Amino acid sequence: MSRIVTVAAAQMGPTQRADSRAHTLGRLVRLLEEAAARGATLVVFPELAFTTFFPRWLLDGNDLDRYFERAMPNPAVQPLFDRARELGVGFNIGYAELTPSGERFNSSILVQPDGSILGRYRKVHLPGSVEPRDGARFQQLEKRYFSYGDTGFPAFRAGEAWSGAIMGLMICNDRRWPEAWRVLGLQGVELVCVGYNSAAYDPNGGTTEDAALRTFHSTLVAQANAYMNATWAVAVAKAGNEDGSGLIGGSCIVDPDGRIVAQTETLGDEVVVAACDLDRCRQGKDKMFNFGQHRQPAQYGPITERAGVIEPPHPAPSAAA
Amino acid sequence: MSRIVTVAAAQMGPTQRADSRAHTLGRLVRLLEEAAARGATLVVFPELAFTTFFPRWLLDGNDLDRYFERAMPNPAVQPLFDRARELGVGFNIGYAELTPSGERFNSSILVQPDGSILGRYRKVHLPGSVEPRDGARFQQLEKRYFSYGDTGFPAFRAGEAWSGAIMGLMICNDRRWPEAWRVLGLQGVELVCVGYNSAAYDPNGGTTEDAALRTFHSTLVAQANAYMNATWAVAVAKAGNEDGSGLIGGSCIVDPDGRIVAQTETLGDEVVVAACDLDRCRQGKDKMFNFGQHRQPAQYGPITERAGVIEPPHPAPSAAA
Repeated sequence: MSRIVTVAAAQMGPTQRADSRAHTLGRLVRLLEEAAARGATLVVFPELAFTTFFPRWLLDGNDLDRYFERAMPNPAVQPLFDRARELGVGFNIGYAELTPSGERFNSSILVQPDGSILGRYRKVHLPGSVEPRDGARFQQLEKRYFSYGDTGFPAFRAGEAWSGAIMGLMICNDRRWPEAWRVLGLQGVELVCVGYNSAAYDPNGGTTEDAALRTFHSTLVAQANAYMNATWAVAVAKAGNEDGSGLIGGSCIVDPDGRIVAQTETLGDEVVVAACDLDRCRQGKDKMFNFGQHRQPAQYGPITERAGVIEPPHPAPSAAA
Repeated sequence: MSRIVTVAAAQMGPTQRADSRAHTLGRLVRLLEEAAARGATLVVFPELAFTTFFPRWLLDGNDLDRYFERAMPNPAVQPLFDRARELGVGFNIGYAELTPSGERFNSSILVQPDGSILGRYRKVHLPGSVEPRDGARFQQLEKRYFSYGDTGFPAFRAGEAWSGAIMGLMICNDRRWPEAWRVLGLQGVELVCVGYNSAAYDPNGGTTEDAALRTFHSTLVAQANAYMNATWAVAVAKAGNEDGSGLIGGSCIVDPDGRIVAQTETLGDEVVVAACDLDRCRQGKDKMFNFGQHRQPAQYGPITERAGVIEPPHPAPSAAA
């Protein structure tokens, strides 16, 4: 028996600061409609999909607040939710969350085809810095604008419309951290959705990384972590030139062997679709990556004992000769 | 300033059960000499390099014991150690270890150019089964023949000849487990050596994996884990047809961006060499993968709390409608 979920990666081209919310929502609805027309029942949108990638700017007050959602859904985004239910498709989308108590998170929500909310996730691996970097044309201020996610990496069991898939969410930088994938893998995840906004240059100010290398990195981590956890993965970019700052594309759907089965070719609004048979995860989960049989947690202590590096000691001077 | 270590991946072709120890040692010495002639100061050999991959056979008594080393070095392998010191090259090599107290490990040793032993490692992630699989032409009995490694994943700081490199060892299946890489990464590892014997078919008895797919898996995990830990990696196969059982090749040297800088093209004895600048690790270690700044161990609990999968609960029948 096959358990097939037809998934769309709905890549977005750039969103400028001057773009209206209504304009961007129209783009999202059109991507949703194209995905549905091509048979998808799950549409994965990027991180911070309703706005430009505002953490590149130093902002405060209302200039910052206008990028945040105070509830999800809310009247400004309701048409996307309505159209999805009408079409019988569900979706995953990223947004900036401002809670009633005033906390701010880089968040993501998973909405089933019947409109029910299956899961929420708040980004754990915030990149960048709290303070702006002197002289940088573009900042990366996620550590300034967001609190670290407090949800862990929960997996969610979907309903019949998605074949009872065990699903997990990540946001952007999370995908570079094998710990995030493994915590999902330890819950039997079969389909991981990741939205991202990844600079086409080194966002930390170096000169050694270009768009090609950063697209390679992005694809590589999705492939390898999907394989090592025997899961499907869908990684979706907001791409292109946002107010002079480049974002990579390379949105992809990856099978549990780590092979790319669909990938975007542009830096614009673009949908790619793949039929993902969840039972294809069994080969890995039951054999090579049968965690219960093969993992050795007693040897993994440092992973949870500390955050940073402790190098082995230097030899004593006499021994170094 | 650059800190360059010129590294050779010394892939071996097959070793048959009937091959003499002296014959195999001669091959190892010739590979070492070729690597040294091409400028390498570190030569990485495969897992279980002195013998055929004997865990594919159900063995006992002397038929099993003859594959094990009771000391390292020992008279049978001493010529390799002597030639290495003579040439001023060090090496990493895998072997079956039988301890004085009778314990058996799948082990690996790191020998510096001056002949000193920098480190030892015992394989943690033993694949396969304890009991033979009925009807299988070839077994995978590592769990029968070896105890689980008890060394953790120690990193070793090399001497001047290797530019003070922080080095780590893995063996075969370890490379598919991101935990192994991460424990080394948390010690600032700059160069990971992995030897392997990986079947060119599904060693667990499935039919969906062939040599091309398994070579892809092998390369993919080396690339992504090198990138995610900002380290060089050298992964070296014993390849080809051993007594009717195929082994993949694909030995490779991978840079800290996850890019392959050298890879073998045959399934035979073959040396590929690359000059590895350890300072190339700094870009990743200081920025994207600055663990102290960006890791969130409080969210990683399940990784060390348990070995196996706990799936999210099924919805109550009424909620599943």
